[in-house]
Amino acid sequence: MASSLLRNPNLLSTTPSLPTFSSKPTPFSFRVKPSRHCSISLRSQTLRLSCSISDPSPLPPHIPLRRRPEYIPNRISDPSYVRVFDTTLRDGEQSPGATLTSKEKLDIARQLAKLGVDIIEAGFPAASKDDFEAVKTIAETIGNTVDENGYVPVICGLSRCNKKDIERAWDAVKYAKRPRIHTFIATSDIHLEHKLKKTKAEVIEIARNMVRFARSLGCEDVEFSPEDAGRSEREYLYEILGEVIKAGATTLNIPDTVGITLPIEFGQLIADIKANTPGIENVIISTHCQNDLGLSTANTLSGAHAGARQVEVTINGIGERAGNASLEEVVMAIKCRGDHVLGGLFTGLDTRHIVMTSKMVEEYTGMQTQPHKAIVGANAFAHESGIHQDGMLKHKGTYEIICPEEIGLERSNDAGIVLGKLSGRHALKDRLTELGYDLDDEQLSTIFWRFKTVAEQKKRVTDADIIALVSDEVFQPEAVWKLLDIQITCGTLGLSTATVKLADADGKEHVACSMGTGPVDSAYKAVDLIVKEPATLLEYSMNAVTEGIDAIATTRVLIRGSNKYSSTNAITGEEVLRTFSGTGSEIDIVVSSVKAYVGALNKMMDFKENSSPTKIPSQKNRVPA
Amino acid sequence: MASSLLRNPNLLSTTPSLPTFSSKPTPFSFRVKPSRHCSISLRSQTLRLSCSISDPSPLPPHIPLRRRPEYIPNRISDPSYVRVFDTTLRDGEQSPGATLTSKEKLDIARQLAKLGVDIIEAGFPAASKDDFEAVKTIAETIGNTVDENGYVPVICGLSRCNKKDIERAWDAVKYAKRPRIHTFIATSDIHLEHKLKKTKAEVIEIARNMVRFARSLGCEDVEFSPEDAGRSEREYLYEILGEVIKAGATTLNIPDTVGITLPIEFGQLIADIKANTPGIENVIISTHCQNDLGLSTANTLSGAHAGARQVEVTINGIGERAGNASLEEVVMAIKCRGDHVLGGLFTGLDTRHIVMTSKMVEEYTGMQTQPHKAIVGANAFAHESGIHQDGMLKHKGTYEIICPEEIGLERSNDAGIVLGKLSGRHALKDRLTELGYDLDDEQLSTIFWRFKTVAEQKKRVTDADIIALVSDEVFQPEAVWKLLDIQITCGTLGLSTATVKLADADGKEHVACSMGTGPVDSAYKAVDLIVKEPATLLEYSMNAVTEGIDAIATTRVLIRGSNKYSSTNAITGEEVLRTFSGTGSEIDIVVSSVKAYVGALNKMMDFKENSSPTKIPSQKNRVPA
Repeated sequence: MASSLLRNPNLLSTTPSLPTFSSKPTPFSFRVKPSRHCSISLRSQTLRLSCSISDPSPLPPHIPLRRRPEYIPNRISDPSYVRVFDTTLRDGEQSPGATLTSKEKLDIARQLAKLGVDIIEAGFPAASKDDFEAVKTIAETIGNTVDENGYVPVICGLSRCNKKDIERAWDAVKYAKRPRIHTFIATSDIHLEHKLKKTKAEVIEIARNMVRFARSLGCEDVEFSPEDAGRSEREYLYEILGEVIKAGATTLNIPDTVGITLPIEFGQLIADIKANTPGIENVIISTHCQNDLGLSTANTLSGAHAGARQVEVTINGIGERAGNASLEEVVMAIKCRGDHVLGGLFTGLDTRHIVMTSKMVEEYTGMQTQPHKAIVGANAFAHESGIHQDGMLKHKGTYEIICPEEIGLERSNDAGIVLGKLSGRHALKDRLTELGYDLDDEQLSTIFWRFKTVAEQKKRVTDADIIALVSDEVFQPEAVWKLLDIQITCGTLGLSTATVKLADADGKEHVACSMGTGPVDSAYKAVDLIVKEPATLLEYSMNAVTEGIDAIATTRVLIRGSNKYSSTNAITGEEVLRTFSGTGSEIDIVVSSVKAYVGALNKMMDFKENSSPTKIPSQKNRVPA
Repeated sequence: MASSLLRNPNLLSTTPSLPTFSSKPTPFSFRVKPSRHCSISLRSQTLRLSCSISDPSPLPPHIPLRRRPEYIPNRISDPSYVRVFDTTLRDGEQSPGATLTSKEKLDIARQLAKLGVDIIEAGFPAASKDDFEAVKTIAETIGNTVDENGYVPVICGLSRCNKKDIERAWDAVKYAKRPRIHTFIATSDIHLEHKLKKTKAEVIEIARNMVRFARSLGCEDVEFSPEDAGRSEREYLYEILGEVIKAGATTLNIPDTVGITLPIEFGQLIADIKANTPGIENVIISTHCQNDLGLSTANTLSGAHAGARQVEVTINGIGERAGNASLEEVVMAIKCRGDHVLGGLFTGLDTRHIVMTSKMVEEYTGMQTQPHKAIVGANAFAHESGIHQDGMLKHKGTYEIICPEEIGLERSNDAGIVLGKLSGRHALKDRLTELGYDLDDEQLSTIFWRFKTVAEQKKRVTDADIIALVSDEVFQPEAVWKLLDIQITCGTLGLSTATVKLADADGKEHVACSMGTGPVDSAYKAVDLIVKEPATLLEYSMNAVTEGIDAIATTRVLIRGSNKYSSTNAITGEEVLRTFSGTGSEIDIVVSSVKAYVGALNKMMDFKENSSPTKIPSQKNRVPA
């Protein structure tokens, strides 16, 4: 019968989830061990997740084998230490459709700080008012939260090589304890000729002046990137890099912008730069590898092996085209093999936060990882049925090189099924606490009410069910419109018809009905009749989250608003229309679909319009990829 | 309004699809250029796709820059030629939930032959009767289809190091023009001690005897793999490899079973084996790299650079845990950089079939690639809005290192929107022909009828709509049960109720109704009441395939049958329950969900039960990963 459904292995959930592997009976399942740094507060009938690094943590303190050296922009006291520069919020967000709201960026930045990344590239402040404010907020909050070991991440803002961009970047990051400006210009012949239309000497002059300008603003930490370094003429590269060092650059980032190099080449490039650039001993060399040939992780490691001491990476490897080197792969490779193969290299990360960070980025950007994604894919730690049972593999090392607990997955022998319809408030609260949610009584009441509704309809309520319910409340934007009721008739025999009742911000009820080509279409049309806000539906997808098609389904939609909801494109300076995502989790897939749509509309109406004070359409530099 | 939906960039379609990139207005989109090797024939009211390599092809002939050398098992006349060994059907199929039916395996094998892989590892014949027959059928058909250049793929069967497995493998592959047996045994200390519980000398004895046994059956092409070679003691490895060469092995495959090595190490391993193994000059060295640290592509290339002349890969990099080196990454890296960086290495593949093969494997296995998957991900060739428009990037090489046409993507300036409700039969037929479908009049009638139904409900019918309709007919199994009608009432106000009418194989109509917790649950329960075949629903997912939520949604379900539908696990010798997938494409998401479920039930009832004549539960060797 269809009523007993194991959970979908492609399950996406931002909150702690249960990536068990459903298609074969598996003796082990893993679940995310969330940090109790997360707490939930109730605001205007909407639960919001807020995270604080001062909360008690259920994880024992992270005691690194080797100490993270003190932060000095252009120098690292321990020659084996590799800085991790995360650019999920800048390069990752450049992925088609991965636009993040300011709140989402702040959540991810907080999670990156838990993970312990050395530098957070928080965005491209000149892009739009929204981008500027996101970077500024991250600088003010995450950039000022110093932990007991003195750790606080550097907050970095990207800028093209022009004064307005650099000023705007500085205005956003200067609030951080450790602010950094990252500026770039292309240096390969193909880019000089076809894109910049400038001579080599002109480009050197611009680079030198702009690095000097950034320093003149009071910024003591300036990173410079020669875009498309992988294809740049070697001697020219040494020259421009030498000049920006003289002008005050503290980190030199070497991007393989088109992802064309093989590891042996990229390592040689870093080695050559190290050997031939005047003054290189006074700065940090960094890697930035695109993944067009699937080699970004290997190239990054090869660069570190050759002398780079900063690696630019993104969570889940997201980014334009085939993305960037993925943080989890690079960091775990260094952790597993740094001592044996890479001459003792190490990073300062608390890898136990990798899974949670990965899930959050997956949920917020909508960029799903494939089941066989290394480290964080749903199958990465899955073994075929029987392997563990036959007793031969009690020695975990036979097939497992990374212990799942290291990245925040916890081994579990049960499927997490603990609650039924007779379970009380106390049992639910206990389970929520175990899952990492610290709820007060009022918050608990809201979740308990929804839990009972589910339990009436399902025999067994799983952890994943509970998590989906909490997410459904937590990740909703401030409600403008709220779904009250819906009624649907559909099928092959007649016209689909939906009646929808919504409440507006003042609680006033509105009812509309519409026909459509199917249940979701008719319901969305009825919503449109009430909300009267033009939106284009770009994407629609659904997964059964938990046990049974009689269980909870999560719908995700992506919509695009009208001209009102635009911002300046980070790359070209053009106006682009913003997209907004919404999710809904309900047993009834039609209700879940409508909740997702209403959620996306609410998010859209909450968006600050672009005032774009630094629009520079004439200089169409592109962000180094 | 919600009615204008660009297509989902995560769109999965086996047939030619349109991976355009919806969230930003993009001036260019790409579409798959299918081969016209595919034709469709009508059988018992179900369209089936059959492919024949003798049909005329719309692609111009593949004229490789360098000629594929004649096949001799243990020798390659051109020292720069790298053989591509595809193990999608064996190692790839080992992924959790990726079980393929015999028909699906045959389709993929045919596609791999179009691609021109040198060796197809078609399966593990000792696993079950179904596996045996799949390998045998592939050997008999694909293994005997010689093209005009004399190319025919080697068909390889895997076997553990025992006589029964090897005999069974030979019985399956011997029908091919070029049959190969691949046998393996573990050689690392950790595996010898914890898994095999044998001494080094005992393992050498087994390996030598079994390779000799394989040769004694008349098989002149024998591959041997020392499992977990990456962690095996070096001197022991040279010794056992030297012994199997003497016993008649023609290819030695070196697996990095746990994916632990870095490229520099793996290259050194291959170089050491090449330098120290007695008789190695008379055989081919092969790589087999797992992807646990995200390094499988780099390791494979490093191995080839060090002297390996066979690379074991899978389409989309699928496989257990984090999967294997992906064919498309390895092959395109060799194509792009073989001359410059790898000393002139090349393969014999016609890379223009990469995209179609990737889509087929994605559809059949259900292992979705992430949008930022290198080469074949939906975003791999996506560029942000405006980049192409600004005129600076007319030189494609600025950001593009691979030309999309090289892998079978075709640039298109329109979104593929060609048909409306007034379009006639002729326009539809023309468009289908352009998309690669060669339909006769009767087939066209079926599709045209469905097309008109869609066109009545939608303003614009896109290529993706049409493709979804064809797929929906083509990829259905022989129908036991057929959905006639369905009627649903649901919503937040009352009990969900569904009435379903199905026709059985004899055309007799059956009606049942059921309540449920949502529209899909109630409909599935009504189906269960009619079909009376116990099945567990394992996965459920849905994507909007085409424009508008008023358009076509594709549902995919995975179900598991009862004890009757079991086979022997390829790895442990245990009985495992088979899983069956079903897809449905309809405008109404509930109807689409029910079609998918009925499709999966039909596939299940069509499955041959396991007779497992070669079950060897005592020897629990594991397939080298």
